[in-house]
Amino acid sequence: MAKPKNNISTDSYIKGILERDITVLSKAITLVESTLKSDLEFAQEIIEQCLPHSGNSIRIAVSGIPGAGKSSFIDVFGSLLTKEFGKKVAVLTVDPSSQISKGSILGDKVRMDKLSTNENAYIRPSPSSGSLGGVTRSTRESIILCEAAGFDVIIIETVGVGQSEITVRSMVDFFLLLHLSGTGDELQGIKRGIIEIADAIAVNKCDGDNIQKAKLAKKEIENAVHLFHQSESGWETNVMTCSAIKNTGIDEIWTMIEEYIGHVKENGFFDSNRNQQSKSWLYETITNMLEESFYNADGIKNEIKLFEKEVTDGKINTFHAATMLLKLYKSSLKESE
Amino acid sequence: MAKPKNNISTDSYIKGILERDITVLSKAITLVESTLKSDLEFAQEIIEQCLPHSGNSIRIAVSGIPGAGKSSFIDVFGSLLTKEFGKKVAVLTVDPSSQISKGSILGDKVRMDKLSTNENAYIRPSPSSGSLGGVTRSTRESIILCEAAGFDVIIIETVGVGQSEITVRSMVDFFLLLHLSGTGDELQGIKRGIIEIADAIAVNKCDGDNIQKAKLAKKEIENAVHLFHQSESGWETNVMTCSAIKNTGIDEIWTMIEEYIGHVKENGFFDSNRNQQSKSWLYETITNMLEESFYNADGIKNEIKLFEKEVTDGKINTFHAATMLLKLYKSSLKESE
Repeated sequence: MAKPKNNISTDSYIKGILERDITVLSKAITLVESTLKSDLEFAQEIIEQCLPHSGNSIRIAVSGIPGAGKSSFIDVFGSLLTKEFGKKVAVLTVDPSSQISKGSILGDKVRMDKLSTNENAYIRPSPSSGSLGGVTRSTRESIILCEAAGFDVIIIETVGVGQSEITVRSMVDFFLLLHLSGTGDELQGIKRGIIEIADAIAVNKCDGDNIQKAKLAKKEIENAVHLFHQSESGWETNVMTCSAIKNTGIDEIWTMIEEYIGHVKENGFFDSNRNQQSKSWLYETITNMLEESFYNADGIKNEIKLFEKEVTDGKINTFHAATMLLKLYKSSLKESE
Repeated sequence: MAKPKNNISTDSYIKGILERDITVLSKAITLVESTLKSDLEFAQEIIEQCLPHSGNSIRIAVSGIPGAGKSSFIDVFGSLLTKEFGKKVAVLTVDPSSQISKGSILGDKVRMDKLSTNENAYIRPSPSSGSLGGVTRSTRESIILCEAAGFDVIIIETVGVGQSEITVRSMVDFFLLLHLSGTGDELQGIKRGIIEIADAIAVNKCDGDNIQKAKLAKKEIENAVHLFHQSESGWETNVMTCSAIKNTGIDEIWTMIEEYIGHVKENGFFDSNRNQQSKSWLYETITNMLEESFYNADGIKNEIKLFEKEVTDGKINTFHAATMLLKLYKSSLKESE
């Protein structure tokens, strides 16, 4: 058994989490985010005991480019869920870019000023360091912990850059893209491929002088959405408008999400999707671990760049290079003990 | 040194390939496609000696759903290139589905009846067995062999199903999607995500009663294309019409491809893209080999399904399961010698 952290036993952690003790939950998430081997082992014990109590939330991704108003949207949306619908809401943020542009983390928490003082809500910013792979693992495991703590809506806030949306897509039930209406050529502002993964697109800041522009954007995006195949879930990407600051269109979004959940629970997609997500996650984790083990092996670290140069210079063939590197790896494994 | 196949030495292979001896080239590709370890090793020696003579072609993918008219297009397009532009054209087909629906292979060769008797053209059907990964490797290596044999346009024909387009995208300079105009709701017939990877979309069968429909389709696709971000190459997806049976619009497609190549050679994307493709291919090959080694290891084959079930049943955590599997793998490697 792994050594308990801060002299708190696994049992105390589990008890605290199941009682929704926010201090204990936060400590457990810190363990999950740790890069220390002993912490990770201990975290695994906690997660494993939380697993039977997990799975009962609705997991929602809220994505969008910086400036789309994600934080204020989540602030209003989360408050609505706690007050009008009796939900307990956990907000996890995934922002692999925060390693570089720190500061946005604190900012986020400040900007969700309603939710951060709401006793039925819990906000946990992205870990401030780590690769996308690491952030992905800790977010997935934090979802389990939050669910065991009885949060029934988990919102994953993600910044619309890099690969993070695709990754976040694979851990949620519903993907909401927030869009900021712009200059008329609406889709220009939407990243390639993201329409395909969004279950709904909400044109935010539909208020004041911006109402006409937002409505036009909605129409234009709607036209584009119709051009695509329907997704596996049998649900066509919904396009709506909302205003976080005026609190309009927000409850409609929740109604739509409930409708979606009803739809996919009925047609079986909800379960099959979660099942598929678990499987893919196992195989992805295996691949990540294999790669980590490979690239950190003694024989590889020094050689890999040389091989890469030989390959791009056309001096050795890729398959040949990879075969030699794999031999080096296997022999370094044998020597390692 | 690997044992020569059929008593032909590496030198004879190289000489034959460089002299564009089609029999020798075909035998070399057969070696590349082989699953025998001795053949593969021998093939690697041949490829490595061909590498300095490779890289000088234009690599073009021609994709589209079955029925879009890929074979007849390539037949006419390839003939044009050999006759009007003095090119030597090699056609490789990638069809991972051919393992199941055999027969299409012979069919393809028959359907390219002009090109198959053209002495400046070489048609090589997809290997009739093998995983997508295997087909990918053999296609990439066949490109090297064909280039060493002096073919200056390599056409990769791919069936618009599954993951094959994305894979083929990563081995070509230009991706052409052939589209068959349909019922008016044009984009419905285009697979999700494919607009993003196509450098051009040609609405084929723009002839006879179909002309109006094809022109309408072109317009509709054009509108959709404008909605997307420009690709890294700085080139906006071009939409055209053509008719393979009437031989119209075909030379315009070649002119466009030449224009594209000029554009990306000037802005540096041509080289940076090829360089990036080589690098990615090395890292992909390493990952594939690691996975192959893992999933074929003695300790793993029997256990993996059990672990998968435990994970999807929520009995053990993913990270924990993967850690245990990796330990099993490493110890099986140590025992293996």
